[in-house]
Amino acid sequence: MVRVGIVGATGLVGQYLIKTFIGHTDAQLTVLCSDHASGQQIGDVCPILKNELYATLVATDVDRLAKETDIVFMAKKGPEAMKMAPPLVEAGVKVVDMGGAFRFDDPATYEEWYKTEHLCPGLLKDAVYGLPETHRKEIVSAEIIGNPGCYPTGAILPLTPLLEKGVISKDGIIIDSFSGISGTGATYSAASRNLYLQCNENSRAYSVATHRHMPEIEQELSRVAGDGLKVVFVPHLIPLDRGLLTNAFASLTSDYSTDDVVELAREYYRGEPFIRIFDDISRVELLHVAHTNYCDIGYTVDKRTQQLIAVSAIDNVIKGSVGLAVQSTNILFGIEETSALKNRAI
Amino acid sequence: MVRVGIVGATGLVGQYLIKTFIGHTDAQLTVLCSDHASGQQIGDVCPILKNELYATLVATDVDRLAKETDIVFMAKKGPEAMKMAPPLVEAGVKVVDMGGAFRFDDPATYEEWYKTEHLCPGLLKDAVYGLPETHRKEIVSAEIIGNPGCYPTGAILPLTPLLEKGVISKDGIIIDSFSGISGTGATYSAASRNLYLQCNENSRAYSVATHRHMPEIEQELSRVAGDGLKVVFVPHLIPLDRGLLTNAFASLTSDYSTDDVVELAREYYRGEPFIRIFDDISRVELLHVAHTNYCDIGYTVDKRTQQLIAVSAIDNVIKGSVGLAVQSTNILFGIEETSALKNRAI
Amino acid sequence: MVRVGIVGATGLVGQYLIKTFIGHTDAQLTVLCSDHASGQQIGDVCPILKNELYATLVATDVDRLAKETDIVFMAKKGPEAMKMAPPLVEAGVKVVDMGGAFRFDDPATYEEWYKTEHLCPGLLKDAVYGLPETHRKEIVSAEIIGNPGCYPTGAILPLTPLLEKGVISKDGIIIDSFSGISGTGATYSAASRNLYLQCNENSRAYSVATHRHMPEIEQELSRVAGDGLKVVFVPHLIPLDRGLLTNAFASLTSDYSTDDVVELAREYYRGEPFIRIFDDISRVELLHVAHTNYCDIGYTVDKRTQQLIAVSAIDNVIKGSVGLAVQSTNILFGIEETSALKNRAI
Amino acid sequence: MVRVGIVGATGLVGQYLIKTFIGHTDAQLTVLCSDHASGQQIGDVCPILKNELYATLVATDVDRLAKETDIVFMAKKGPEAMKMAPPLVEAGVKVVDMGGAFRFDDPATYEEWYKTEHLCPGLLKDAVYGLPETHRKEIVSAEIIGNPGCYPTGAILPLTPLLEKGVISKDGIIIDSFSGISGTGATYSAASRNLYLQCNENSRAYSVATHRHMPEIEQELSRVAGDGLKVVFVPHLIPLDRGLLTNAFASLTSDYSTDDVVELAREYYRGEPFIRIFDDISRVELLHVAHTNYCDIGYTVDKRTQQLIAVSAIDNVIKGSVGLAVQSTNILFGIEETSALKNRAI
Repeated sequence: MVRVGIVGATGLVGQYLIKTFIGHTDAQLTVLCSDHASGQQIGDVCPILKNELYATLVATDVDRLAKETDIVFMAKKGPEAMKMAPPLVEAGVKVVDMGGAFRFDDPATYEEWYKTEHLCPGLLKDAVYGLPETHRKEIVSAEIIGNPGCYPTGAILPLTPLLEKGVISKDGIIIDSFSGISGTGATYSAASRNLYLQCNENSRAYSVATHRHMPEIEQELSRVAGDGLKVVFVPHLIPLDRGLLTNAFASLTSDYSTDDVVELAREYYRGEPFIRIFDDISRVELLHVAHTNYCDIGYTVDKRTQQLIAVSAIDNVIKGSVGLAVQSTNILFGIEETSALKNRAI
Repeated sequence: MVRVGIVGATGLVGQYLIKTFIGHTDAQLTVLCSDHASGQQIGDVCPILKNELYATLVATDVDRLAKETDIVFMAKKGPEAMKMAPPLVEAGVKVVDMGGAFRFDDPATYEEWYKTEHLCPGLLKDAVYGLPETHRKEIVSAEIIGNPGCYPTGAILPLTPLLEKGVISKDGIIIDSFSGISGTGATYSAASRNLYLQCNENSRAYSVATHRHMPEIEQELSRVAGDGLKVVFVPHLIPLDRGLLTNAFASLTSDYSTDDVVELAREYYRGEPFIRIFDDISRVELLHVAHTNYCDIGYTVDKRTQQLIAVSAIDNVIKGSVGLAVQSTNILFGIEETSALKNRAI
Repeated sequence: MVRVGIVGATGLVGQYLIKTFIGHTDAQLTVLCSDHASGQQIGDVCPILKNELYATLVATDVDRLAKETDIVFMAKKGPEAMKMAPPLVEAGVKVVDMGGAFRFDDPATYEEWYKTEHLCPGLLKDAVYGLPETHRKEIVSAEIIGNPGCYPTGAILPLTPLLEKGVISKDGIIIDSFSGISGTGATYSAASRNLYLQCNENSRAYSVATHRHMPEIEQELSRVAGDGLKVVFVPHLIPLDRGLLTNAFASLTSDYSTDDVVELAREYYRGEPFIRIFDDISRVELLHVAHTNYCDIGYTVDKRTQQLIAVSAIDNVIKGSVGLAVQSTNILFGIEETSALKNRAI
Repeated sequence: MVRVGIVGATGLVGQYLIKTFIGHTDAQLTVLCSDHASGQQIGDVCPILKNELYATLVATDVDRLAKETDIVFMAKKGPEAMKMAPPLVEAGVKVVDMGGAFRFDDPATYEEWYKTEHLCPGLLKDAVYGLPETHRKEIVSAEIIGNPGCYPTGAILPLTPLLEKGVISKDGIIIDSFSGISGTGATYSAASRNLYLQCNENSRAYSVATHRHMPEIEQELSRVAGDGLKVVFVPHLIPLDRGLLTNAFASLTSDYSTDDVVELAREYYRGEPFIRIFDDISRVELLHVAHTNYCDIGYTVDKRTQQLIAVSAIDNVIKGSVGLAVQSTNILFGIEETSALKNRAI
C-alpha cells in the first residue's frame, strides 16, 4: 500500500488528488498538509469531501512526510516544492511537483519564465517530465516527477507522433488553446479575472505568446523534432468549468491524407489506456472527456492548403493535472496504470 | 421615411431586425411576412417583441412587398431570396439577402458550396458584398446587398488592412473561430446539435476546413491580396449565446512590431464608427461587444516566430448579421450610418 | 455476481446506469438492449462509454433478459415496463422501473396523471417505492422497484422526518423546485424546450401545480403524515446540467428552533450513507452534490413567521435517478449499500 | 435638457446608468464622479463605454454637482448618499439613491437592518420610494428618490394588486427569489462568493430570512395590506448574468380563479408601459425581460389547495435598478415616461 502525502491539500488540485486517491485500492492518504486549516477535518473545510474521508489536516511538516509517506504531491503555489524536494528525496520519498519547478531540463529556462531563482538545480537530473505517453520508461525510476502543465499536455499529445515520424514540419506550428475557468484556480485573482461576471458569456485571449507553458511545449516537442522548434501559442478562456480544447496547425512535409495521419497516431498510441483517436475532428468534444483522464485527439488534413489540423480535448483538472499525476504514480510504484482512473469519473 | 419589409419575420434574424428597426428614426416596418404565422400579432408569436410593436404578420407576398416597401430583408432559409429578388429589383425595391445567394461574384462558387443551382446569376452584377468598412462606396448604389456571414465578418475586418498594405503574407493564413450557439439558429438541428445538454460545458469544432464561409473569406481577402489566397478555416462552438471570437495567424512580410501593425490598422479604419482597435489582444473580449454593432480588434506580433496574431470580437447576431444589414441600409438610403445602431444595445 | 440487463441502454438514464455498473465490483452488465442501435458497439453509440466498456447492443428480448439477467432496469419511455415486468417477474428476475408505472399504490392515480391505462395493476402489490431512506426494509424483498422521480426524492427526504415527528403541519406545504436541464432528457422536445438558446441565461416555471411528480410526493408524505396531505408544487428549470434544488416551506406545529429541527433530522437519518444535514441553508449547494449520490439538506426556522424552510440539493441524474436505482439494487441483493456509489463521482 | 450627475460612475450600476442616459433625448450626462479613476476617460476605464461616450471622470465634488446638475444618482456603496443628499437637496438638485438609505419611512428600520446610523433622518419625509407603478404620484414632486432593491421590485409588483383588492391574505406570504450573479456586484466578495467556479453549475440560498430587502418588501406590502404583514423571504443565486425570478405563494381569501386574478391585475396595471401580465406562469421567462425594463408577471390559482402562485421576471440590473431609476427620473421631470427605456435593450 503506497502511502501518500499532499502539501496544499485544500486547494483545487489538492482536493481532486484526495478525491482520486480515496478510490485507489493500492494507495492510501496518510498525511494531508494545509497550513491555514491545520487541525480541522478535511470534510469541514472542503464540502465535496464531507463524509467521503475522515482525516485531520496538519501543518506542513517535512519530517513527518519523510517518515509517513512514500510519495508526496506538492500542490502549493510558491517555492515550497523546491525547498522540500531535497530532504524528501534524501529520505527516499518520491516527489510529484504539480507546479513548474521540475518540468525543465535547464534551470535557466525555469528562471527566465518563472522570474525566480531555482533553489535545487542539482535535482533536475533526477526529475522526469511526467507525461506517461512520452516518458513512461523514465517515470518508472524517477525520484521527482515534474507534472506537466495542462496546455502542454493538450499540445504535446497530438503533435508528438507526427513530429517524431516527420509527418509535419517543426517550423510554423501554431497552438490555439481554449481552457475552462478552473484553469485559473479557485481563488480570486485580478490577473485571471475569474469572477462570474467577467467569465460568463465571454471569451478572451490572455498571456498572448508569453505564457509560461510555451517553453514547456517547446522543450517536449524539441525532444522528438530536434532543437530550435518554436511555437506560436495563444491561450484563451471559455465559459465552462472543466476542459481544455487545443487546436494545432502545422505544415505537412509530404502529401499525407487524414487517414495516413490517423493511422500513424493510432499505431503510435496503440495500447495507451487514456488516448482515443478520431478521424473526424468534430467528434472531439470537451463533454466526452470531462471528469475523466482521457485525451481525445482528432486530425484533419486540409488538402487545399496541405496543412494538418489537430484537435485535442482533455479535462484540464484531470488529464491536465491530477489524473496525470496519479497515472505517473501508478507507473512509479508498479501498480496497474489505470488504477483509480478508469471506469470512474472524478 | 424608408419603408422596410421582412421575409421570415419570426426567425432569430427576423426578430432582431424588427427589434433594431423599432428604434430607427428614419425607417419604419411596413410589411412583416411569416408564412407559418400569418394573421397573428408579432408580439404574440415573439415574446421579446410583446408590447414593443403592434403589427400583424402576413403571408409572403411579392406584390405587396413591391408596393409597400423600399427595402426588403430576406431572412428566410432556402431559395426564396433568389426567387423574390428579380421582381423586387424590377419594382425598384432594394433587397438585402441575409443568406449566401448574393455574396459571391461568381455563381459557380455559390453552386459549389451551397450545393444548389443559382436561380438569378444575372443579378449578381447588381449585388454588393455588404461589409461597409470594405465596400461602403459600392453599397451606396447597390440594388442587392449580400449581407456577409458572421465568420467572414470576423475574419475579413482584422486581416484586410494588413493584406492590403502587404504587411502579412497571403500564404499560410490560419483562421480559428469560436462562435456562440446563436450562430446555429433558433430551431433544433441534429447537425448543429444545439440542445442545451450538447452545448453547455462543451466546445468542439465542426465543418472543419469545409465550411461555406471559407470561400467567402477567400473571395474578400483575395480582392485586396490578389488571387490564389487560401485560408485554413476551423469554426468551433463555445457555450454562450452571443459572440464570435476570431483568431487569425499570418506570417509577417518584414520585421514589423505590434505598434506598427496597430498604427496601420488604426489609420486604415480611422473614422469607422464601429471598429475599435487595441494594442493588447487580451483586451478584446466578447463581453465588450455583446448586443452591440462593434468589432473589436487586437494585434500582437510574436517576435520569436515573426508571426502576426490577430483577434477580433463581434456579436455574431449584430455585427455578424443584423447590425451589419442595418448599417448597410443606412448607407444605401443616405441616413446617418449609425442610426439605430449606436448608443444602444440590441 | 449480479447479472444486470438494461432496456433503453443508450438513453441518458441508460448510459449513466452503465457508467455506474462498470465500476461495480459485485455486479456485471450482461444484456444491453437498444432497439434503434442493436448490433452496434455501445462505445460507438455513446461517446462517454468509448474504451470504457466493450459490449454489443441487442434488440429488446424478454426471453434473453429472463435467462441472462438477475435484474433488469427499464429505462425506456412508454408502456414497455408494464409489458415486460410480468414475464420477467414470473422468471424470477427483479425489475427496476425508471419511469412512473410502479411508483403508485393505487393504479388509478397512475392512470389519472399519466393519461394511460395501467397494464398490470395486479403487480403493484409486489412493487416497492425505491427510496432506501424511507423504504429500505421493503426493498430487501421487492420483486419490482418503482424508482422515484427526481422532484419527489428532493422533496420527500427533507420533509419526511419532520412530518413523521409532527414538527410541521401537513397543511399548507409549499414545494418550489429548480432543476438542471438534464431533467428534460437528452432529445429535443418542443414541450420541454431544451435548446441551448431557450435555456441558457433563462429560468422559468413549467407544469405549474400540474406536474406528474406531485401525486407521488403526496403519496409518500401522506404515508407518514396521514391522509389528505396536499402540496403546492412548482417545478422550474435553471441553466445548468446537473442538479435539483428543492425549497420547501411549512408551518411549525410548535415553537421549535433551527437546532431542534436539525437535531431531529440528524437523528432520523443517523447512519444513512448519502444524507448530509446542515444547520445553515446557505451551505446546501448544487455544486457539492453534482456527480454524487448525496442528498444535502439544510433547515432554517424563521422565528418571525414560525415557518420552517427546508432546502435540499441532489444531482437529479444520480440521487434523483440512477444512483438511487443502484443503491436499491445493492440493498436488494445484500451487497454493501454504497457499492459503486461512494468515493467516486459519476 | 435635464443635467445628470453620477457618483460612482464606474461601478456596475454607474456604467449602466451612463449607458441608458447616452440614449436619452431629454437628458445629458454632465458630471461623472469616480474617486479612484478621476482624470481618466470613461471609455478607457469601462470597455463597454469605449467610443460610446467621451467624458472625463472627476473626483466626487458636491459643489460641482450642485451647480452643474439637476439630478444626481448616488451609485456608490457606503454612507456617501446620506452625506451628500442634504447639500444637494438644499441646492435644489434632485437625488436618486441607488442604495438603501432612503427607502424606509422609519430611520430605525434602516438602522436595524443596515447596522449603521442614519445620517439625515430628517430628509426621509422628502424621500419617495421609487417604484412608479405604486408611487407615481409622489415621485412627481419628490426631492429624493429611494430607488427600490431588486428583490422588492420583483415581489411588490405581482402582489400589490392582490393585497390591495383583498384577494390574498396578508398572512403566510412566501417569497422564493432567484437572482442572476450580477446581483452580487462587479467586484470580488467572499460573502457573495461570486467567482465563476463558485457560481457556474450551482445554485444556493443565502441570507435566508435575514436579507435586508425583507423589511423593504414588508413596508411596501403593508402600505396596501395594513400593518403587521410579514413575509418569509429566501433569496438564491442561479448561474446567469441578468435576471430575477420571484415566486410568491399566498392564500386566497375566497374562491377566485386564475382568470379572476389575471383580470384584476390587468385592470390594476392598465396603461403601465412596463408591466406585461400572463395567464400562464410558464410564459414568464427571464429571457424575455433580459436587457429590458419590463416586469413580466404570471398568476396561477391552485384549486386543489386554494393557494395563489405568482411569478415575476425582471432584469435585476434594469427594472430592478437602473431602468427603474431612469423611469422615475422621467416622471420627476415631466419627460415621456418610457424615454430611453422602451424599444431598446440596455
